[in-house]
Amino acid sequence: MRILVANDDGIFAEGIYILSKELQKIGEVIVVAPNSERSATGHAITLHQPLRVEKVKFFDTPIEAYSISGTPADCIKLGVEALLKDRKPDIVISGINNGPNLGTDVIYSGTVSAAVEAAIMEIPSIAISMGTTEITQYNDAAKFVCQIVNQIMNNRDLIDTIININYPTCSREEIKGVKVTTLGVRKYENTFIERKDPRGNSYYWTSGIVAEIEQNQNSDIIALKNNYISITPIDFDLTHFNTFEKIKEWNFKI
Amino acid sequence: MRILVANDDGIFAEGIYILSKELQKIGEVIVVAPNSERSATGHAITLHQPLRVEKVKFFDTPIEAYSISGTPADCIKLGVEALLKDRKPDIVISGINNGPNLGTDVIYSGTVSAAVEAAIMEIPSIAISMGTTEITQYNDAAKFVCQIVNQIMNNRDLIDTIININYPTCSREEIKGVKVTTLGVRKYENTFIERKDPRGNSYYWTSGIVAEIEQNQNSDIIALKNNYISITPIDFDLTHFNTFEKIKEWNFKI
Repeated sequence: MRILVANDDGIFAEGIYILSKELQKIGEVIVVAPNSERSATGHAITLHQPLRVEKVKFFDTPIEAYSISGTPADCIKLGVEALLKDRKPDIVISGINNGPNLGTDVIYSGTVSAAVEAAIMEIPSIAISMGTTEITQYNDAAKFVCQIVNQIMNNRDLIDTIININYPTCSREEIKGVKVTTLGVRKYENTFIERKDPRGNSYYWTSGIVAEIEQNQNSDIIALKNNYISITPIDFDLTHFNTFEKIKEWNFKI
Repeated sequence: MRILVANDDGIFAEGIYILSKELQKIGEVIVVAPNSERSATGHAITLHQPLRVEKVKFFDTPIEAYSISGTPADCIKLGVEALLKDRKPDIVISGINNGPNLGTDVIYSGTVSAAVEAAIMEIPSIAISMGTTEITQYNDAAKFVCQIVNQIMNNRDLIDTIININYPTCSREEIKGVKVTTLGVRKYENTFIERKDPRGNSYYWTSGIVAEIEQNQNSDIIALKNNYISITPIDFDLTHFNTFEKIKEWNFKI
């Protein structure tokens, strides 16, 4: 099995190192990741600048690794269509992200966008995130990912599904179990902070704290809050099928 | 009715000018748009740099307009939560984008991301795109948008739906009608072009031509190809409900 690994924290982040080392036990690992942190890049791709590729030594491992001057989505596109052109990966895994990727926030997530890019290319994919930098916790999460890889490999019809995993940050003993979840809704309060520059002109920082709003009990947000590992299947077809028929009834004049 | 207008081609693009002028006839228009072109930014938001806001004269109009040093999604967030804090817009409209936003490509679209951002904040929204820079054609598309605005205002339960419109570029007489569509799939061939710098190092340009693949007959891609205006309802809940139950049957060990 050939596993392509990416992230959005950059190729030298601890999360991608621990994940790749663990995945080596179950397959051939190739890392293609951004040369620096790219959080909140959403599903951006780089069109107006060329992408630089540098083959790098990946920590203390013999893993084949490429550092890219682009976004997480660029890494997967370039990885599959150029660097691994004749060696298509069987699965793509993005992470371990330092910080959760929950609810509507997945729309902004570089980690998830790498996995989405794989699914568009009909390669099964996993995004894995947790709000910690503890190596022992990363290890547990990486082991859990290996389990999910095996599940996906036994369910080959899931090629259009992205598996978004959020791993809790409590101690191992406190983890209650695993929940298959839907995406909750994340809203923020006091989103912008205004500042003045020395010439008296305003500028704004995007900020904000997560607002406490009521969540669906099946949501990833509730699961993680209650110390469950959350697994959310994600779709790249954004069609709103529930309102489709309703809009068909509208009258249009041209 | 208060209408917030954004785009990803930048505040001085012709499409946003024609659209805003037309929308002025049916409501109060405020423009908050990027200070330069931001295509293929996906749903990026700016966290690590402050956002600059400049109040600008909007062409030959008296329209209140702000130029932002950020992405289309930043413009909507900042517009609603800071600039129009006590004047929440009734609807957000993004465009007219110079170029279509069809199928899976909407994931990369700054134009659509602005509309998605509005929907997350429970404001109805429209994205409008067409593959032209002809002013008369922009005018027709802008008039069509006004029609859709009225439909949405009469269907207030559609606040979680983004209406993605692609307007054909044929002459007005050749337009066959309007189709409510699903998102098709866009794939590209020869996606990366490799070049060498003067020192012999490789770099890559993201490129590629649209691959001819079989499409669902209900898709936006087929509709536009056949000279229909396509209207696709878009959802920001990315949960893959079709595979949800299936994944629940997996066995997990922790």
